[in-house]
This record gives sequence, C-alpha cells and structure tokens, in this order.
Amino acid sequence: MYNEYLEFAKEIALYAGKTMMECYNDTIDLNYKEDKTVVTLVDKQINRYLIEKVKEKYPMHAVNGEEESYNSNSEYVWVCDPLDGTGMYVNHIPVFVFSLALVHNGEPIVGVIYNPNEKKMYYAIKGQGAYCNDIKISVNNNKFGDLGYKTNVEIFNNNIIDEVSLIKELKNNSKISSIGSVARSCMAIATGDFSCDIFPGTSHGNCDIAASYLIVTEAGGKVTNLYGENQRYDKDIKGSIISNGISHNDILEIVKKYLLEK
Amino acid sequence: MYNEYLEFAKEIALYAGKTMMECYNDTIDLNYKEDKTVVTLVDKQINRYLIEKVKEKYPMHAVNGEEESYNSNSEYVWVCDPLDGTGMYVNHIPVFVFSLALVHNGEPIVGVIYNPNEKKMYYAIKGQGAYCNDIKISVNNNKFGDLGYKTNVEIFNNNIIDEVSLIKELKNNSKISSIGSVARSCMAIATGDFSCDIFPGTSHGNCDIAASYLIVTEAGGKVTNLYGENQRYDKDIKGSIISNGISHNDILEIVKKYLLEK
Repeated sequence: MYNEYLEFAKEIALYAGKTMMECYNDTIDLNYKEDKTVVTLVDKQINRYLIEKVKEKYPMHAVNGEEESYNSNSEYVWVCDPLDGTGMYVNHIPVFVFSLALVHNGEPIVGVIYNPNEKKMYYAIKGQGAYCNDIKISVNNNKFGDLGYKTNVEIFNNNIIDEVSLIKELKNNSKISSIGSVARSCMAIATGDFSCDIFPGTSHGNCDIAASYLIVTEAGGKVTNLYGENQRYDKDIKGSIISNGISHNDILEIVKKYLLEK
Repeated sequence: MYNEYLEFAKEIALYAGKTMMECYNDTIDLNYKEDKTVVTLVDKQINRYLIEKVKEKYPMHAVNGEEESYNSNSEYVWVCDPLDGTGMYVNHIPVFVFSLALVHNGEPIVGVIYNPNEKKMYYAIKGQGAYCNDIKISVNNNKFGDLGYKTNVEIFNNNIIDEVSLIKELKNNSKISSIGSVARSCMAIATGDFSCDIFPGTSHGNCDIAASYLIVTEAGGKVTNLYGENQRYDKDIKGSIISNGISHNDILEIVKKYLLEK
C-alpha cells in the first residue's frame, strides 16, 4: 500500500515539475500573501491539482496544503508545499522544489521532493531508506566544528538575522549559507552535502518539513522541533532542526542558548 | 576585433562549463585556500586552460585569474573567475558560473558569464548592449523601497553579517537574499530579476566583478566601488555595488552610513 502511495506522490510531483518549468520563464503574475512571502499562480495550480487527485483516488484522506486544504477530518493527511523556494523561482534562480508527504496520525510515512530544474526526485517510505533518482542516499558524519561542516540557515524569511550571536557561533564552527529553499537544503543534508539546517518556522511550516522529515530520517539523519522534541506534521510546527544526527545535540544547545532563551 | 575576442571568450566558457558538469557529481577533491574559501581542481583546470589558450592566441595579453595569473605586463588583461559560487558547486546546489572579461587599460570591453547547469550564456561588448542566449536583456526600474525591490548581499563570505543595522535597513526596504555567487546575482540584475547587489569584496574581487561590470552596465545598470567611484578591474577592487542604476545612490548612502563609517 505504501508503494502505491509513493507512486501517487511521484505522479503529482511530475505534474508539479512540468507546471513549474512551463511557467518558469514567463513573466510571472505575483501576489503577495499577508506574510509577504511570494505566492504565484503556479503554487495555487499545483495545490488545486493535488486536492482534485486526492478526492478522486483517496476521498477519505485529507490535504493540508500551503495554499489550500481539504477535509480536515482524517488520520491520513497529504501535506504539501507546492513550490518551496518561491522567492528563488520568481527570480529565475534554480533552487526550488515540490514537497509532498503522506502523514498518518501525525507521522510522515511517504515523502517525495522533486526539483524539476535539476531533474532530481528524492523519496522515502518509512522503514525502507531514502533515495534520489533511485540511488540510495545517506547523511554525512561531520561533527559540528569540523572544517567541512555545512550549516544552512533560513535566515531572511525569519528574524533569525537579528540573532547575531547565533550566527557568529555558527560562522565560527561551520560554513553557513541560506539557499532560499528549506526543503532543498534538507535534501542536501540527506545526500551528505550539508550537515544541518535551522528552520525557525513560519505558519504552515509543517508543509515545508513533512516530506523532508521522512527523507532525512530514512537517510540516517535526525529531525526535531527547535526544542529537540518530536512533533506532529499534520499541523503547525514549532520550527525545525534538521541534521545529520551526529551533530544534533550541539546545534540544539546553540539554538537553545541564542534563539530560545533570549 | 571585439567580436573575435567575444567568440574566444565564449569558447573558453563552453570548455569551462563542460569541465564543471563532468565533475559536478563526482566526489570532489577539495583543498582549502588560506581565506577558507573552497577551491577545487576544477577551478584550477579551467584557469590553466585559459592561460594556455591566451598564450597561443594572444601571447601579448595578460591573464589575471583567481587561481593563477600570467604576464602582468600588458594593457590587455583577461580577468577570470573560473568558478564563481564554488561553495554552492561542491554542495551540488546549481548556482555557479564561469566569468571572463577582457579588460583594456583597466576597463572591461568584453564580458562573458556562463552557467552550464542552466545553459545560460550572458555576454556583452562595450557599447553594444547585453545579451543572454542571444536575447537582449535589461535591468528593471524598481526604486529602493518598492515592494518588488530585490537586494542580494554576499553575506556569509564576508563580515557584513555583523552589520545588523545595514541588514535591518535593507530588510525594511527590500527582499534580501544571499545566493552564494555574486556573478550569478549580477546576471539576475542584468535580466531585471534582482535590483541590487552589495559585494564587500575579497582579494581577487576584480575577478568576480569584471565581466559583471560590463554586462550589467550594458544592460542599463550601474557598477561602482563601495564609495560610488569608478575603479580599474585589472587589479584588486574596493568592493562593489551593482545596481539597476535608478537606486544606486540610495544604496550608496546606506552602505556609507552603516558599513563604511563604522
């Protein structure tokens, strides 16, 4: 059954990728959401397509989409960010992905993330490992403070930029970046490129993280909220720390010291 | 003659792109330079190839490369960053470019920037406009403070992250990002996606900016050092502000207030 869910998710991902790439070089009709993140017609179209397909195939399931939801009353919820990295997408910088997870009683059991520009399909089923284009992937084993340690911080969409002490401590112990798509950054963790991501969270933050949670976990990494706890992914989350596992506690301590105890 | 230089530069760019993509998915043999930026064998190989080709075709010209130089004694200097965005490249994030300019008596007269992943070839000849894949490109006309104004700040490779007041003022007036390749960011300015880039500069900073200077200028934008002055691009520069032109003075004032007068 999980394999059927995975195939369904991949089909939606391919539709999403096609839609993204068709519109990528158009003049894009932009709206601004209340929180001033950019939302495009592409987001909405993909989100709507997902809802139609779930209604058709799994009418008892729910959809929790960043743009639109359906049927809040199910233990099975398709949690979707139709276009993560919208800010990059609209500026024609090729760092954006589609993200979709099937969450059962709060826990992701199937996850798919697709970057149509790079033609990379990342996926995982609970308990069966993580893959990119059908090749098994796994996290690195860099310790925090290693020369090669790579931290990605979603710095601009949040107020974390004000936390200079946090950023300085990260800079002293790692290379940091802010690539503009937390889900793409999580896939860099799953493939062993990055070591950690700090995601302070926005509303609908679970849509950004649900699929990444499963793929990173199945690749050997660890995902918690900012307090180091497990959390449900079918509703709002308390931010997220996504890591290679080995460095999770070090990052938690820094986040606690500089971000949470202010 | 300028057209011949342009064709020469494009040939080098295509070689560079091929080399980058062949090695992109390899385990990459990394070294660390003194300033801890990552340098790969790919950088060195492209830089070396350029020197060989210039020796063959224009033996009286000089090469000023980020990794290696040749013949410092010429009024014609090929100024090259073989791989701008190395940090992204080694992490398999597709934001990296090859950058090459021919600089005559300090002034860029031919510029080529190539992103092999996106298959985008940006170029300009002095006085003849700017192009991407043979389509004419031009800057936007967003004013600083406009809703759509986009600032890119090369924030992590420099200590600008400490300048919280600067970042806050930018955040209050624009969407900011830090995509990891200043030359790619400049091309987003040339095509009207971004509006401004603040580049505090590193040693060999001219290698990062020389080609961008010409392409952005020919696309209708403006490029100066951090003090608003013109500068030579065949030797080290005093940082760079790259803009759509209309907002250049506003950005200069902020940089002066928060970055230079500290």
